[in-house]
Amino acid sequence: MQDKITQLLSDIQAGSYKALARGITIVENSLPGYEDILLQLSNRNEGKLIGITGPPGAGKSTLVSSLLKHWTSNGKKVAVIAVDPSSPFNYGALLGDRIRMNEFYNNPDIYIRSLASRGALGGLNPKIIEITDVVKQAPFDIILIETVGVGQSEVEIAGLADCSIVTLVPEAGDEVQTLKAGIMEIADIFVINKADREAADALYASLKIMVHQKATEEREIPVVKTIATEGKGIDELAESIDRYFADFHSHTEHKVHLLTEKCWQILQAERMKDLNKKQISEELATLINEPGFNLYTFAKNLLVQK
Amino acid sequence: MQDKITQLLSDIQAGSYKALARGITIVENSLPGYEDILLQLSNRNEGKLIGITGPPGAGKSTLVSSLLKHWTSNGKKVAVIAVDPSSPFNYGALLGDRIRMNEFYNNPDIYIRSLASRGALGGLNPKIIEITDVVKQAPFDIILIETVGVGQSEVEIAGLADCSIVTLVPEAGDEVQTLKAGIMEIADIFVINKADREAADALYASLKIMVHQKATEEREIPVVKTIATEGKGIDELAESIDRYFADFHSHTEHKVHLLTEKCWQILQAERMKDLNKKQISEELATLINEPGFNLYTFAKNLLVQK
Repeated sequence: MQDKITQLLSDIQAGSYKALARGITIVENSLPGYEDILLQLSNRNEGKLIGITGPPGAGKSTLVSSLLKHWTSNGKKVAVIAVDPSSPFNYGALLGDRIRMNEFYNNPDIYIRSLASRGALGGLNPKIIEITDVVKQAPFDIILIETVGVGQSEVEIAGLADCSIVTLVPEAGDEVQTLKAGIMEIADIFVINKADREAADALYASLKIMVHQKATEEREIPVVKTIATEGKGIDELAESIDRYFADFHSHTEHKVHLLTEKCWQILQAERMKDLNKKQISEELATLINEPGFNLYTFAKNLLVQK
Repeated sequence: MQDKITQLLSDIQAGSYKALARGITIVENSLPGYEDILLQLSNRNEGKLIGITGPPGAGKSTLVSSLLKHWTSNGKKVAVIAVDPSSPFNYGALLGDRIRMNEFYNNPDIYIRSLASRGALGGLNPKIIEITDVVKQAPFDIILIETVGVGQSEVEIAGLADCSIVTLVPEAGDEVQTLKAGIMEIADIFVINKADREAADALYASLKIMVHQKATEEREIPVVKTIATEGKGIDELAESIDRYFADFHSHTEHKVHLLTEKCWQILQAERMKDLNKKQISEELATLINEPGFNLYTFAKNLLVQK
């Protein structure tokens, strides 16, 4: 087994898509060899993982398509990890989108892998950290994680991606103070998409002030205006990404933060694995209408039993 | 201590804001008596907790203000739990907002409590579940949780609120398929705010089809159009909320789901409390550039040590 896994990892590192697909499947489903793969991963391809987040209506899919065209026409090899069940990359989208995506599926420089999401409440695949670490073994220039549009995964992505691109619509300026509290902590690059709309200039000005206030000596978060449907601003965005990654080795604080979040999620999954959510739910269903029911007593007893 | 806590809870139940503030402070900071309070909570005021979520730019703050005006002018007592550090209720907002909010702070039928958020990556206060359970002991007609605008807390809120209102802008229709995958699972009521904008009717039509496909015999998720800045649609929204809560006792499945999510978060906090994220981060900082570093080995060793 050990030998087989070493061979598989070496094939992945040599660029075999077949070996990569196999490796991901083993990790995603905890098949035999799962732990061996993880413990043998080498620390490579740091600084290539991009996450794109943003609210519904911000035009993320079109932005991703434009970036893929840009990168592949510049000879880059790109992996796309699609965690959104309705993503065009996941065959879940409207017919028009699916036709549009075919060109990417047939391009040998693009590897696309769809993952199931976590379940009823959406969110990321529980093995997303491990899977991206396997993809990092392969010789891609860029690895892109497509997020679910509604934003619940934004923080998880931010704890995972080397570079988080936050996409906004011009009208987000209405809540620029709220942005400050939240996305400012996540974004490595801001995109104002649909920048031909009226409020774009005002949002651009507000964001520039915000990022300037927050700028360190090292860097200031770039703000890029795009009109993805017309391919406008894509070159500039790609350049911002390149510049970000060129400096990535020096962002030690950021890298430690990412690694800590990843570590925390691995620990959490390990610590909770003996608890069965479905079973807890069934027990609660029988208790919910009991007059003296107290959730904290219930939880306390559950932990004592274990 | 036990007697003091019993008295405190009885004062909270009688409507004392002072006792409520004290109770929340004890729970928020794990002060002596913290566990006694939780284990003595009675199972009351189910079906009064409303969470409002939505992307930046959707106009959530204005919507909340309009709802507060509507409820208090109808003689209702409302608690607002503000978890967003930039919220107008948290004194974090623009001057104009703060002036606008003063009327609520001086209204005896409104109790407002601001909570710190979780830290660098935002998110909810780690004691949010416990705190809302304390607020539920008091005789409010409605308890409202204001979320951070960027959406990372949406799923957490959905696992907490009895009724989740998802606010969208008309342009969200561009990604209606994405919505289907994510927010559809969270929303108990949809609001299309800024409904005077061009795309509103198309989004309304799409959402109506989606909620109809997903409708059960029990109910179909309502879709309400509002223009919060002009107070339009607020009466209809308030009615939808009333109707939702009138049926709430019959939504057993939904209630069990909420309770399971709450229970899971309580268990998770308990299971992780011996692990120190800051210390892990410091250890990782010293290891990050070591050639043979492997995160999974690190995590495995950390758990063996405990």
